[in-house]
Amino acid sequence: MPTAVPVSNVAEALFAPQTIALIGASGDPAKNTARPLQYLRKHGFKGGVFPINAAREEVLGEKAWPDLAAASKAAGGPIDHAYIMVPGPAVPGVISDCAAAGVKVASIYSDGFAETGEDGLRFQVDMVAAAREGGLRLIGPNSMGVVNLHAAMGMTTNAALEAPGLIPGPFSVISQSGTALGALLSRGQARGFGFSKLLSIGNESDLSVGEVVDFLVDDPDTGAILLFLETLRRAEDLALAARRAYAAGKPVIAYKIGRSDAGQQMAVSHSGALAGPDAAATAFFRHHGIVRVDTLEALLETSNLVSGLKPATGRRAAVMTTTGGGAAMVVDRLGLTGVDFAVPPASVVTRLEGL
Amino acid sequence: MPTAVPVSNVAEALFAPQTIALIGASGDPAKNTARPLQYLRKHGFKGGVFPINAAREEVLGEKAWPDLAAASKAAGGPIDHAYIMVPGPAVPGVISDCAAAGVKVASIYSDGFAETGEDGLRFQVDMVAAAREGGLRLIGPNSMGVVNLHAAMGMTTNAALEAPGLIPGPFSVISQSGTALGALLSRGQARGFGFSKLLSIGNESDLSVGEVVDFLVDDPDTGAILLFLETLRRAEDLALAARRAYAAGKPVIAYKIGRSDAGQQMAVSHSGALAGPDAAATAFFRHHGIVRVDTLEALLETSNLVSGLKPATGRRAAVMTTTGGGAAMVVDRLGLTGVDFAVPPASVVTRLEGL
Repeated sequence: MPTAVPVSNVAEALFAPQTIALIGASGDPAKNTARPLQYLRKHGFKGGVFPINAAREEVLGEKAWPDLAAASKAAGGPIDHAYIMVPGPAVPGVISDCAAAGVKVASIYSDGFAETGEDGLRFQVDMVAAAREGGLRLIGPNSMGVVNLHAAMGMTTNAALEAPGLIPGPFSVISQSGTALGALLSRGQARGFGFSKLLSIGNESDLSVGEVVDFLVDDPDTGAILLFLETLRRAEDLALAARRAYAAGKPVIAYKIGRSDAGQQMAVSHSGALAGPDAAATAFFRHHGIVRVDTLEALLETSNLVSGLKPATGRRAAVMTTTGGGAAMVVDRLGLTGVDFAVPPASVVTRLEGL
Repeated sequence: MPTAVPVSNVAEALFAPQTIALIGASGDPAKNTARPLQYLRKHGFKGGVFPINAAREEVLGEKAWPDLAAASKAAGGPIDHAYIMVPGPAVPGVISDCAAAGVKVASIYSDGFAETGEDGLRFQVDMVAAAREGGLRLIGPNSMGVVNLHAAMGMTTNAALEAPGLIPGPFSVISQSGTALGALLSRGQARGFGFSKLLSIGNESDLSVGEVVDFLVDDPDTGAILLFLETLRRAEDLALAARRAYAAGKPVIAYKIGRSDAGQQMAVSHSGALAGPDAAATAFFRHHGIVRVDTLEALLETSNLVSGLKPATGRRAAVMTTTGGGAAMVVDRLGLTGVDFAVPPASVVTRLEGL
């Protein structure tokens, strides 16, 4: 059995690969599987990109390699990160090729795994076991890929990367929904918020949300970590990573759906995960210093608000405004969260009255 | 005792006056009391505007009249709407002048009334009694004035009117906070929402929120009625007007603060009103067909959303999206409001699968 890839190498291959293989990259620009190559080029990724397509010698005007072995040879060594976009049933064969070629991380776009039911789950578990056996870590399946704006790495099928001039910044995002990832990126950019890493975790079959948070705690380009969650799959990983993030002064902010019964059922059917009672999630977040918000918009705004700040240790606040109506809105809303209000000391009142 | 002004004339004098007197208009452009004249001119009000200032012959480059009698004479008849901006103690004298000059409506910017305590409340009650006696209806005191974008009427001390090119539209706003009024106008305009009437009701000593809603139900330029409330002062007026609005197909949307204890105390001290238990307010709104929202932003967005629509009669919804994450967010949030979800009938599923 080959030696497992050291963690630091996984994080690097995941977010800052020197070489990327796009396995199953389509030559039809209208297909989602043609997007990663387009976006890597559009945003100016500096590393090596190797489209792999057994059926064509050329993809979107670039040379395509027939298989991973040929690509590795052209790259002069193992490919760091493979993005697998072949049909679901073909994925295990590709994983086996990746292991043989020494690929460190594979992100899997393909679907037809745990989200389809019992058989799909078994198929997924077997695939992960084979990958581990081959010394390879996985993102997905059902993953829209990985973006690192500090490295112009747009390895994603998400159309949010169509936008030109994306601004690098301190926010990193891990999402159990690929489309929510795109929505956060495009809405955030429209407000002038810059992003660092954005990762679509998909079915979270191998690398978990918590493990990726852990990588981000050590990432100097990440100032705050935003999570879009439909469920808590590997809560112990997340708990440990969140505590490390807290100690490092990097806020972790989570928008988790599944607050209503209907939402929980939806999350189950969408991602194949079992959703627990929502109150348990709230208690979990609070216990491990994760800020929970309840809209996609708040995920962005709260991250901007708390970035670089340690949580307050007290529960008393003073509110200062130029208007009664503004004060009333702020006090009312804060009051609902259990904050107490401090009135100005007599000396301050006297001094203000004298002005 | 003079005959009371007919209601239709009150509404017209309030929102579409032919003549406006600005009593206590300052000649110092840095003062709030200089703003109404500036804004009426800036936005091109077509009616007659009469600054009244006993101390100066000229205000901001325009002729000023020494008193209301002189202004009425110049106007060739009674002034429709007076905006009173003199110091609080001088207001009763001005009200008496207004009554003598046949003014139909006076809006009062001055403070020092019910919001200051028991003595102020008595002072306010006496003033209202005198106004009624004189056949005059009042807005305020503590009112930032009245805006009608369909008539370029910027009779307000609120700096939101500094913005050029305000867009007329279907939203009318009544606010117990003058600054919230300005915030709604400027934020709404930034989103492209057009406004009709905006009225700062202040202490609501005479004309009530409900009475003004009632005027707006009959206003062809008003499509939806937005309320910013700190308290419910004359609930019976509002109940009747809201039911008329409902029948007319004009949604009434309310953002009422005072949900937290701290917020309630704040509302009391800011506006001098007694705030009741918040659950009673929720029940009241629901009973009378008023949509309650809980942020300033939702007041704008919800108004835009429900404008021109009758409330749904059922509680079942179908959700159709192109993405699992999007569906999960929508279903989760709707589920919290008690909406049930309809799944597509088998025939639809079969047909979609065949595509």
